[in-house]
Amino acid sequence: MTLLHIDSSADTAEDSVSRYLTGLFATTWRARNSAAPYRHRDLCADPVPALGPAYAALGRRVEREGFVPPDKVPALVENAAEEREWAHTLPLIDELLAADTVLLGVPMYNFSIPASLKAWIDRVTFPGAYADPDTGESQLRDTRVVVAMARGGGYGPGTPREPYDFQTPYLKAYFGELGVRHLHVVAAELTLAGLLPHLAGLKDLATDSLNRARAQVTALAAA
Amino acid sequence: MTLLHIDSSADTAEDSVSRYLTGLFATTWRARNSAAPYRHRDLCADPVPALGPAYAALGRRVEREGFVPPDKVPALVENAAEEREWAHTLPLIDELLAADTVLLGVPMYNFSIPASLKAWIDRVTFPGAYADPDTGESQLRDTRVVVAMARGGGYGPGTPREPYDFQTPYLKAYFGELGVRHLHVVAAELTLAGLLPHLAGLKDLATDSLNRARAQVTALAAA
Repeated sequence: MTLLHIDSSADTAEDSVSRYLTGLFATTWRARNSAAPYRHRDLCADPVPALGPAYAALGRRVEREGFVPPDKVPALVENAAEEREWAHTLPLIDELLAADTVLLGVPMYNFSIPASLKAWIDRVTFPGAYADPDTGESQLRDTRVVVAMARGGGYGPGTPREPYDFQTPYLKAYFGELGVRHLHVVAAELTLAGLLPHLAGLKDLATDSLNRARAQVTALAAA
Repeated sequence: MTLLHIDSSADTAEDSVSRYLTGLFATTWRARNSAAPYRHRDLCADPVPALGPAYAALGRRVEREGFVPPDKVPALVENAAEEREWAHTLPLIDELLAADTVLLGVPMYNFSIPASLKAWIDRVTFPGAYADPDTGESQLRDTRVVVAMARGGGYGPGTPREPYDFQTPYLKAYFGELGVRHLHVVAAELTLAGLLPHLAGLKDLATDSLNRARAQVTALAAA
Protein backbone atom coordinates (compact mmCIF):
# COMPACT_ATOMS: atom_id res chain seq x y z
CA MET A 1 0.00 0.00 0.00
CA THR A 2 1.84 3.09 -1.25
CA LEU A 3 0.30 6.49 -1.97
CA LEU A 4 1.90 8.86 -4.46
CA HIS A 5 0.34 12.31 -4.10
CA ILE A 6 1.05 14.76 -6.94
CA ASP A 7 -0.06 18.40 -7.02
CA SER A 8 0.17 20.63 -10.08
CA SER A 9 -1.59 23.86 -9.11
CA ALA A 10 0.42 27.09 -9.20
CA ASP A 11 -1.61 28.26 -6.22
CA THR A 12 -0.60 27.83 -2.61
CA ALA A 13 -2.54 25.38 -0.44
CA GLU A 14 -4.74 28.19 0.95
CA ASP A 15 -5.92 29.31 -2.51
CA SER A 16 -6.06 26.04 -4.41
CA VAL A 17 -9.20 23.90 -4.58
CA SER A 18 -7.34 20.97 -6.17
CA ARG A 19 -4.74 21.06 -3.36
CA TYR A 20 -7.55 21.22 -0.83
CA LEU A 21 -9.14 18.08 -2.31
CA THR A 22 -5.89 16.11 -2.58
CA GLY A 23 -5.04 17.19 0.97
CA LEU A 24 -8.39 15.86 2.17
CA PHE A 25 -7.77 12.56 0.38
CA ALA A 26 -4.22 12.23 1.75
CA THR A 27 -5.26 13.03 5.33
CA THR A 28 -8.13 10.56 5.21
CA TRP A 29 -6.04 7.85 3.59
CA ARG A 30 -3.07 8.29 5.92
CA ALA A 31 -5.27 8.15 9.01
CA ARG A 32 -6.38 4.69 7.87
CA ASN A 33 -2.99 3.54 6.57
CA SER A 34 -0.64 5.14 9.06
CA ALA A 35 2.22 2.71 8.45
CA ALA A 36 2.02 2.83 4.65
CA PRO A 37 4.59 4.68 2.53
CA TYR A 38 3.45 8.11 1.39
CA ARG A 39 5.20 10.36 -1.12
CA HIS A 40 4.20 13.93 -1.95
CA ARG A 41 5.43 15.49 -5.21
CA ASP A 42 4.72 19.17 -5.78
CA LEU A 43 5.15 19.91 -9.50
CA CYS A 44 4.92 23.65 -8.87
CA ALA A 45 7.46 23.97 -6.05
CA ASP A 46 9.73 21.36 -7.65
CA PRO A 47 9.10 21.40 -11.44
CA VAL A 48 10.01 18.44 -13.62
CA PRO A 49 12.79 19.62 -15.95
CA ALA A 50 11.76 20.31 -19.56
CA LEU A 51 12.70 17.67 -22.14
CA GLY A 52 15.92 18.24 -24.06
CA PRO A 53 16.98 16.87 -27.45
CA ALA A 54 18.87 14.01 -25.72
CA TYR A 55 15.61 12.76 -24.16
CA ALA A 56 14.03 12.58 -27.60
CA ALA A 57 17.09 10.87 -29.12
CA LEU A 58 17.27 8.27 -26.33
CA GLY A 59 13.53 7.66 -26.49
CA ARG A 60 13.71 7.07 -30.24
CA ARG A 61 16.60 4.62 -29.85
CA VAL A 62 14.72 2.69 -27.16
CA GLU A 63 11.52 2.71 -29.25
CA ARG A 64 13.41 1.26 -32.24
CA GLU A 65 14.49 -1.70 -30.06
CA GLY A 66 10.90 -2.57 -29.13
CA PHE A 67 10.04 -3.15 -25.47
CA VAL A 68 13.13 -2.25 -23.44
CA PRO A 69 12.56 -2.36 -19.67
CA PRO A 70 14.02 0.57 -17.67
CA ASP A 71 16.94 -1.50 -16.32
CA LYS A 72 18.15 -2.15 -19.88
CA VAL A 73 18.02 1.54 -20.92
CA PRO A 74 21.45 2.55 -19.52
CA ALA A 75 23.09 0.14 -21.99
CA LEU A 76 21.57 2.22 -24.82
CA VAL A 77 22.73 5.60 -23.46
CA GLU A 78 25.35 7.12 -25.79
CA ASN A 79 26.50 10.34 -24.15
CA ALA A 80 26.46 12.50 -21.02
CA ALA A 81 23.40 14.50 -22.11
CA GLU A 82 21.36 11.30 -22.48
CA GLU A 83 22.66 10.08 -19.13
CA ARG A 84 21.43 13.31 -17.51
CA GLU A 85 18.02 13.00 -19.15
CA TRP A 86 17.71 9.42 -17.94
CA ALA A 87 18.76 10.43 -14.41
CA HIS A 88 15.90 12.98 -14.41
CA THR A 89 13.46 10.35 -15.70
CA LEU A 90 14.08 7.02 -13.97
CA PRO A 91 13.20 8.20 -10.42
CA LEU A 92 9.81 9.40 -11.70
CA ILE A 93 9.16 6.08 -13.44
CA ASP A 94 10.19 4.11 -10.32
CA GLU A 95 7.98 6.29 -8.14
CA LEU A 96 4.98 5.71 -10.40
CA LEU A 97 5.60 1.96 -10.60
CA ALA A 98 5.91 1.75 -6.80
CA ALA A 99 2.56 3.43 -6.14
CA ASP A 100 -0.62 1.46 -5.48
CA THR A 101 -2.64 4.65 -5.52
CA VAL A 102 -1.70 7.76 -7.50
CA LEU A 103 -3.50 10.89 -6.38
CA LEU A 104 -3.39 13.82 -8.80
CA GLY A 105 -4.47 17.39 -8.07
CA VAL A 106 -5.28 19.04 -11.40
CA PRO A 107 -6.65 22.55 -11.88
CA MET A 108 -7.90 23.49 -15.34
CA TYR A 109 -5.63 26.06 -17.00
CA ASN A 110 -6.78 27.35 -20.34
CA PHE A 111 -9.19 24.40 -20.82
CA SER A 112 -6.52 21.76 -20.23
CA ILE A 113 -4.10 20.45 -17.62
CA PRO A 114 -1.35 22.75 -16.27
CA ALA A 115 2.01 22.80 -18.03
CA SER A 116 3.56 21.54 -14.77
CA LEU A 117 1.58 18.27 -15.02
CA LYS A 118 2.18 17.95 -18.76
CA ALA A 119 5.92 18.20 -18.06
CA TRP A 120 5.59 15.23 -15.68
CA ILE A 121 3.53 13.29 -18.25
CA ASP A 122 5.95 14.06 -21.11
CA ARG A 123 8.92 12.86 -19.05
CA VAL A 124 7.44 9.87 -17.23
CA THR A 125 5.89 8.40 -20.40
CA PHE A 126 9.12 6.86 -21.63
CA PRO A 127 8.79 4.15 -24.29
CA GLY A 128 8.36 0.69 -22.80
CA ALA A 129 8.71 1.83 -19.18
CA TYR A 130 5.44 0.25 -17.98
CA ALA A 131 5.30 -2.91 -20.09
CA ASP A 132 5.85 -6.17 -18.24
CA PRO A 133 9.03 -7.58 -19.87
CA ASP A 134 7.53 -11.10 -19.91
CA THR A 135 3.95 -10.49 -20.98
CA GLY A 136 4.01 -7.00 -22.56
CA GLU A 137 1.01 -6.14 -20.34
CA SER A 138 0.90 -2.81 -18.51
CA GLN A 139 2.35 -2.88 -15.01
CA LEU A 140 -0.10 -0.10 -14.15
CA ARG A 141 -3.19 -2.27 -14.74
CA ASP A 142 -3.81 -2.65 -10.98
CA THR A 143 -2.76 0.88 -10.04
CA ARG A 144 -5.58 3.09 -8.83
CA VAL A 145 -5.44 6.66 -10.15
CA VAL A 146 -7.58 9.28 -8.42
CA VAL A 147 -7.78 12.67 -10.13
CA ALA A 148 -9.09 15.65 -8.15
CA MET A 149 -9.84 18.42 -10.60
CA ALA A 150 -10.84 22.05 -10.10
CA ARG A 151 -12.11 24.37 -12.77
CA GLY A 152 -13.20 27.98 -12.62
CA GLY A 153 -16.31 27.51 -14.75
CA GLY A 154 -18.78 24.71 -15.44
CA TYR A 155 -17.63 22.11 -17.97
CA GLY A 156 -19.63 19.09 -16.85
CA PRO A 157 -21.72 16.82 -19.09
CA GLY A 158 -24.57 18.74 -20.68
CA THR A 159 -23.18 22.20 -20.00
CA PRO A 160 -22.58 24.60 -22.93
CA ARG A 161 -18.84 24.54 -22.17
CA GLU A 162 -18.48 20.76 -22.15
CA PRO A 163 -16.69 20.81 -25.57
CA TYR A 164 -14.02 23.01 -23.95
CA ASP A 165 -13.15 20.38 -21.37
CA PHE A 166 -9.75 19.09 -22.51
CA GLN A 167 -8.96 17.97 -18.98
CA THR A 168 -11.33 15.01 -18.28
CA PRO A 169 -11.31 13.29 -21.70
CA TYR A 170 -7.59 13.88 -22.07
CA LEU A 171 -6.67 12.29 -18.74
CA LYS A 172 -8.99 9.36 -19.50
CA ALA A 173 -7.36 8.80 -22.90
CA TYR A 174 -3.82 9.22 -21.54
CA PHE A 175 -4.14 6.91 -18.53
CA GLY A 176 -6.18 4.42 -20.57
CA GLU A 177 -3.35 4.20 -23.09
CA LEU A 178 -0.89 3.68 -20.22
CA GLY A 179 -2.94 0.63 -19.23
CA VAL A 180 -4.55 2.12 -16.11
CA ARG A 181 -7.92 0.41 -15.58
CA HIS A 182 -8.90 1.99 -12.26
CA LEU A 183 -9.26 5.72 -12.91
CA HIS A 184 -11.51 7.89 -10.75
CA VAL A 185 -12.13 11.49 -11.73
CA VAL A 186 -13.64 13.99 -9.28
CA ALA A 187 -14.34 17.60 -10.29
CA ALA A 188 -15.10 20.73 -8.28
CA GLU A 189 -16.69 23.12 -10.76
CA LEU A 190 -17.28 26.89 -10.85
CA THR A 191 -14.48 27.60 -8.37
CA LEU A 192 -14.33 31.20 -9.64
CA ALA A 193 -18.03 31.85 -8.85
CA GLY A 194 -17.02 33.83 -5.77
CA LEU A 195 -14.57 35.96 -7.75
CA LEU A 196 -16.13 36.76 -11.11
CA PRO A 197 -19.26 38.94 -11.22
CA HIS A 198 -20.73 37.13 -14.26
CA LEU A 199 -20.62 33.81 -12.35
CA ALA A 200 -22.03 35.22 -9.08
CA GLY A 201 -25.47 33.71 -9.73
CA LEU A 202 -23.87 30.26 -9.75
CA LYS A 203 -22.43 30.38 -6.21
CA ASP A 204 -24.91 27.81 -4.89
CA LEU A 205 -24.05 25.42 -7.70
CA ALA A 206 -20.36 25.94 -6.90
CA THR A 207 -20.96 25.08 -3.23
CA ASP A 208 -22.91 21.96 -4.22
CA SER A 209 -20.15 20.91 -6.58
CA LEU A 210 -17.43 21.34 -3.94
CA ASN A 211 -19.47 19.44 -1.35
CA ARG A 212 -20.01 16.60 -3.80
CA ALA A 213 -16.30 16.53 -4.67
CA ARG A 214 -15.37 16.43 -0.97
CA ALA A 215 -17.70 13.50 -0.36
CA GLN A 216 -16.37 11.62 -3.39
CA VAL A 217 -12.75 12.20 -2.42
CA THR A 218 -13.39 11.10 1.17
CA ALA A 219 -15.16 7.94 0.00
CA LEU A 220 -12.35 7.09 -2.41
CA ALA A 221 -9.73 7.63 0.31
CA ALA A 222 -11.62 5.30 2.65
CA ALA A 223 -12.21 2.61 0.00
CA MET B 1 4.19 42.80 -41.15
CA THR B 2 5.84 40.97 -38.24
CA LEU B 3 6.40 37.23 -38.01
CA LEU B 4 6.66 35.54 -34.61
CA HIS B 5 8.01 32.02 -35.07
CA ILE B 6 7.66 29.69 -32.06
CA ASP B 7 9.02 26.14 -31.88
CA SER B 8 8.16 23.68 -29.11
CA SER B 9 9.73 20.38 -30.16
CA ALA B 10 12.34 18.82 -27.86
CA ASP B 11 14.10 17.54 -30.97
CA THR B 12 16.88 19.36 -32.77
CA ALA B 13 16.18 20.85 -36.19
CA GLU B 14 17.63 17.76 -37.94
CA ASP B 15 15.22 15.36 -36.20
CA SER B 16 12.07 17.44 -35.87
CA VAL B 17 9.35 17.44 -38.50
CA SER B 18 7.55 20.39 -36.89
CA ARG B 19 10.78 22.42 -36.91
CA TYR B 20 11.34 21.46 -40.53
CA LEU B 21 7.87 22.76 -41.45
CA THR B 22 8.17 26.01 -39.49
CA GLY B 23 11.64 26.49 -40.98
CA LEU B 24 10.19 26.09 -44.47
CA PHE B 25 7.47 28.63 -43.68
CA ALA B 26 9.94 31.12 -42.18
CA THR B 27 12.39 30.85 -45.09
CA THR B 28 9.63 31.28 -47.67
CA TRP B 29 8.04 34.17 -45.78
CA ARG B 30 11.32 35.99 -45.14
CA ALA B 31 12.37 35.71 -48.79
CA ARG B 32 9.19 37.61 -49.67
CA ASN B 33 9.28 40.03 -46.71
CA SER B 34 12.99 40.63 -46.31
CA ALA B 35 12.62 43.97 -44.54
CA ALA B 36 9.92 42.79 -42.12
CA PRO B 37 10.62 42.13 -38.43
CA TYR B 38 11.11 38.46 -37.61
CA ARG B 39 11.36 36.93 -34.14
CA HIS B 40 12.20 33.31 -33.37
CA ARG B 41 11.33 31.88 -29.96
CA ASP B 42 12.55 28.38 -29.14
CA LEU B 43 10.53 27.06 -26.18
CA CYS B 44 12.86 24.08 -25.81
CA ALA B 45 16.22 25.89 -25.82
CA ASP B 46 14.77 28.79 -23.82
CA PRO B 47 11.83 27.47 -21.74
CA VAL B 48 9.15 29.78 -20.40
CA PRO B 49 9.45 29.72 -16.58
CA ALA B 50 6.78 27.69 -14.75
CA LEU B 51 4.01 29.65 -13.03
CA GLY B 52 4.48 30.42 -9.37
CA PRO B 53 1.86 31.24 -6.72
CA ALA B 54 2.45 34.98 -7.25
CA TYR B 55 1.35 34.67 -10.90
CA ALA B 56 -1.92 33.09 -9.77
CA ALA B 57 -2.45 35.71 -7.04
CA LEU B 58 -1.78 38.61 -9.43
CA GLY B 59 -4.00 37.06 -12.10
CA ARG B 60 -6.86 36.70 -9.65
CA ARG B 61 -6.52 40.31 -8.48
CA VAL B 62 -6.55 41.54 -12.10
CA GLU B 63 -9.52 39.31 -12.94
CA ARG B 64 -11.50 40.72 -10.01
CA GLU B 65 -11.03 44.23 -11.46
CA GLY B 66 -12.54 43.28 -14.81
CA PHE B 67 -10.67 44.22 -17.99
CA VAL B 68 -7.31 45.63 -16.94
CA PRO B 69 -4.98 46.39 -19.86
CA PRO B 70 -1.33 45.32 -19.42
CA ASP B 71 -0.11 48.87 -18.80
CA LYS B 72 -2.39 49.14 -15.75
CA VAL B 73 -1.22 45.82 -14.21
CA PRO B 74 1.94 47.19 -12.46
CA ALA B 75 -0.32 49.38 -10.29
CA LEU B 76 -1.92 46.17 -8.95
CA VAL B 77 1.38 44.40 -8.18
CA GLU B 78 1.77 43.98 -4.40
CA ASN B 79 5.20 42.39 -3.87
CA ALA B 80 8.52 41.43 -5.43
CA ALA B 81 7.38 37.92 -6.35
CA GLU B 82 4.46 39.32 -8.35
CA GLU B 83 6.79 41.85 -9.97
CA ARG B 84 9.06 39.00 -11.10
CA GLU B 85 6.14 37.01 -12.48
CA TRP B 86 4.93 40.04 -14.41
CA ALA B 87 8.44 40.69 -15.75
CA HIS B 88 8.45 37.11 -17.12
CA THR B 89 4.99 37.61 -18.64
CA LEU B 90 4.72 41.08 -20.19
CA PRO B 91 7.44 40.56 -22.88
CA LEU B 92 5.58 37.46 -24.11
CA ILE B 93 2.29 39.37 -24.26
CA ASP B 94 3.92 42.29 -26.10
CA GLU B 95 5.57 39.91 -28.55
CA LEU B 96 2.26 38.21 -29.30
CA LEU B 97 0.41 41.53 -29.69
CA ALA B 98 3.13 42.82 -32.05
CA ALA B 99 2.90 39.85 -34.41
CA ASP B 100 0.83 39.92 -37.58
CA THR B 101 1.53 36.24 -38.17
CA VAL B 102 2.24 33.73 -35.39
CA LEU B 103 3.85 30.53 -36.62
CA LEU B 104 3.75 27.60 -34.18
CA GLY B 105 5.66 24.33 -34.52
CA VAL B 106 3.81 21.72 -32.46
CA PRO B 107 4.69 18.02 -32.21
CA MET B 108 2.15 15.74 -30.56
CA TYR B 109 3.45 14.46 -27.21
CA ASN B 110 1.23 11.96 -25.46
CA PHE B 111 -1.80 12.92 -27.59
CA SER B 112 -1.54 16.61 -26.76
CA ILE B 113 0.74 19.63 -27.15
CA PRO B 114 4.21 19.57 -25.52
CA ALA B 115 4.59 20.89 -21.98
CA SER B 116 6.94 23.55 -23.38
CA LEU B 117 4.10 25.07 -25.43
CA LYS B 118 1.57 24.70 -22.61
CA ALA B 119 3.97 26.67 -20.38
CA TRP B 120 3.90 29.51 -22.95
CA ILE B 121 0.09 29.31 -23.18
CA ASP B 122 -0.36 29.26 -19.39
CA ARG B 123 1.84 32.32 -18.98
CA VAL B 124 0.83 34.42 -21.99
CA THR B 125 -2.92 33.98 -21.33
CA PHE B 126 -3.07 36.61 -18.65
CA PRO B 127 -6.55 37.94 -17.79
CA GLY B 128 -7.56 40.88 -19.97
CA ALA B 129 -4.24 41.09 -21.85
CA TYR B 130 -5.77 40.93 -25.33
CA ALA B 131 -8.99 42.86 -24.83
CA ASP B 132 -9.16 46.26 -26.49
CA PRO B 133 -9.57 48.67 -23.54
CA ASP B 134 -12.18 50.71 -25.45
CA THR B 135 -14.29 48.02 -27.10
CA GLY B 136 -13.52 44.85 -25.13
CA GLU B 137 -12.90 43.12 -28.50
CA SER B 138 -9.91 40.85 -28.95
CA GLN B 139 -6.80 42.56 -30.26
CA LEU B 140 -5.86 39.24 -31.86
CA ARG B 141 -8.88 39.18 -34.18
CA ASP B 142 -6.76 40.12 -37.20
CA THR B 143 -3.70 38.08 -36.20
CA ARG B 144 -3.02 35.10 -38.44
CA VAL B 145 -1.96 31.96 -36.54
CA VAL B 146 -0.37 29.14 -38.53
CA VAL B 147 0.14 25.87 -36.67
CA ALA B 148 2.50 23.25 -38.16
CA MET B 149 1.89 19.99 -36.35
CA ALA B 150 3.70 16.66 -36.48
CA ARG B 151 2.46 13.44 -34.99
CA GLY B 152 3.96 9.98 -34.93
CA GLY B 153 0.75 8.15 -35.82
CA GLY B 154 -2.37 8.91 -37.81
CA TYR B 155 -5.01 10.98 -36.00
CA GLY B 156 -6.77 12.65 -38.93
CA PRO B 157 -10.54 12.80 -39.46
CA GLY B 158 -12.01 9.32 -39.91
CA THR B 159 -9.01 7.43 -38.51
CA PRO B 160 -9.51 5.08 -35.52
CA ARG B 161 -7.23 7.32 -33.43
CA GLU B 162 -9.06 10.57 -34.15
CA PRO B 163 -10.60 10.62 -30.61
CA TYR B 164 -7.03 10.68 -29.26
CA ASP B 165 -6.22 13.93 -31.02
CA PHE B 166 -6.09 16.48 -28.19
CA GLN B 167 -3.83 18.71 -30.28
CA THR B 168 -6.02 20.01 -33.17
CA PRO B 169 -9.34 20.54 -31.31
CA TYR B 170 -7.54 21.95 -28.30
CA LEU B 171 -5.59 24.56 -30.27
CA LYS B 172 -8.78 25.51 -32.15
CA ALA B 173 -10.70 25.96 -28.88
CA TYR B 174 -7.86 27.84 -27.20
CA PHE B 175 -7.13 30.30 -30.01
CA GLY B 176 -10.84 30.70 -30.71
CA GLU B 177 -11.40 31.75 -27.11
CA LEU B 178 -8.50 34.19 -27.42
CA GLY B 179 -10.38 35.83 -30.29
CA VAL B 180 -8.17 34.57 -33.12
CA ARG B 181 -10.28 34.31 -36.28
CA HIS B 182 -7.58 33.34 -38.77
CA LEU B 183 -6.22 29.98 -37.64
CA HIS B 184 -4.59 27.57 -40.11
CA VAL B 185 -3.66 24.09 -38.96
CA VAL B 186 -1.33 21.90 -41.02
CA ALA B 187 -0.44 18.35 -39.92
CA ALA B 188 2.26 15.92 -41.01
CA GLU B 189 1.04 12.51 -39.86
CA LEU B 190 2.71 9.14 -39.26
CA THR B 191 6.15 10.69 -38.75
CA LEU B 192 7.25 7.53 -36.89
CA ALA B 193 6.39 5.23 -39.83
CA GLY B 194 10.09 4.94 -40.68
CA LEU B 195 11.00 4.03 -37.08
CA LEU B 196 8.31 1.70 -35.75
CA PRO B 197 7.92 -1.74 -37.32
CA HIS B 198 4.13 -1.83 -36.79
CA LEU B 199 3.76 1.37 -38.83
CA ALA B 200 6.16 0.31 -41.63
CA GLY B 201 3.28 -0.46 -44.01
CA LEU B 202 2.17 3.18 -43.74
CA LYS B 203 5.40 4.74 -45.06
CA ASP B 204 3.79 5.84 -48.34
CA LEU B 205 0.95 7.51 -46.46
CA ALA B 206 3.53 9.26 -44.28
CA THR B 207 5.38 10.57 -47.35
CA ASP B 208 2.09 11.81 -48.87
CA SER B 209 1.18 13.52 -45.62
CA LEU B 210 4.55 15.29 -45.37
CA ASN B 211 4.39 16.41 -49.01
CA ARG B 212 0.90 17.78 -48.47
CA ALA B 213 2.01 19.60 -45.31
CA ARG B 214 4.99 21.13 -47.16
CA ALA B 215 2.75 22.37 -49.94
CA GLN B 216 0.26 23.85 -47.46
CA VAL B 217 2.96 25.56 -45.41
CA THR B 218 4.60 27.01 -48.53
CA ALA B 219 1.26 28.32 -49.81
CA LEU B 220 0.44 29.89 -46.44
CA ALA B 221 3.86 31.55 -46.27
CA ALA B 222 3.38 33.02 -49.74
CA ALA B 223 -0.18 34.19 -49.09
